[in-house]
Amino acid sequence: MKKIKLYIAASIDGYIARNDGDLDWLMKYPINSETNYGYDDFYKSVDTVIMGGQTYRDILNMDFVWPYKDKTSYVVTRNSMGTKENVHFITENIVEEISKLREEKGQDIWLVGGGQLITMLLNQDMVDEMIITTIPVLLGNGIPLFPDSPKELEWKLQDCRSYENGIVQIVYKKK
Amino acid sequence: MKKIKLYIAASIDGYIARNDGDLDWLMKYPINSETNYGYDDFYKSVDTVIMGGQTYRDILNMDFVWPYKDKTSYVVTRNSMGTKENVHFITENIVEEISKLREEKGQDIWLVGGGQLITMLLNQDMVDEMIITTIPVLLGNGIPLFPDSPKELEWKLQDCRSYENGIVQIVYKKK
Repeated sequence: MKKIKLYIAASIDGYIARNDGDLDWLMKYPINSETNYGYDDFYKSVDTVIMGGQTYRDILNMDFVWPYKDKTSYVVTRNSMGTKENVHFITENIVEEISKLREEKGQDIWLVGGGQLITMLLNQDMVDEMIITTIPVLLGNGIPLFPDSPKELEWKLQDCRSYENGIVQIVYKKK
Repeated sequence: MKKIKLYIAASIDGYIARNDGDLDWLMKYPINSETNYGYDDFYKSVDTVIMGGQTYRDILNMDFVWPYKDKTSYVVTRNSMGTKENVHFITENIVEEISKLREEKGQDIWLVGGGQLITMLLNQDMVDEMIITTIPVLLGNGIPLFPDSPKELEWKLQDCRSYENGIVQIVYKKK
């Protein structure tokens, strides 16, 4: 079965974006050849990405090339938002549809965000791994990583790394 | 000048207690001789503790011996709550009073919590270090570590350690 892996960056105080979706605070910590925070290996380990509708719109608004071109993308949203190569929309039976994706053969699934989709999948025990990259900044407010009170759960620490620029990356596995 | 050091445990999702102040989820990860998470060294580095009124009441309600007997304690609260050996109450001119404590000779100051006092001091640039011990549990909801939108600030990563039981401790210093 494919694993669903949350791979996401957050501030020290647990926000994944400013209230308007802005990620400017993250841009000071780019992924490059020297410090890729395990991104390349992670990216190779998935063939599918899933994300919520707001996250999808935020990425489109960022005015760069769709970053998951070589993956099959699924956007969970109330309304289908047109068609795009290799992007599919899940508008109903969300849990069932994502369950079906897990049953497919192939590599793992990257849960890109946002908070609402994360919480929905946590509540269904459908998140297998959480790779949280903490940026050394207190934002004060923004869009939370874990909104809407996901259910209580203990996790197994798998790995923890720190980087010269102050980033800490923690990997948790489902117990 | 004395440093003010936040030393606190939080869940993966950044809560320091359940909504009613309960710390039961923390009790599975006790400080003992094998794993003290640097607590002994930290404790020796301070001669003063400061905390908010709710944190003070939560500690009193826990029905064990006052844990900071050999330190001078200051409780920030609207109303003084009786007298207790080596416990003082700061009811007004909070920032000025804590500034004065910093000017005294001696060791550092432990900022015990809770969230409101932490945010107040963050907004005054009066927190010099944050030692955050992350317990590998998602609580879903509770009392947040950083409530009321403290101002945005970048921090310098000083140290990061992980423990067998899944705890991760991160030390940030003021830039």
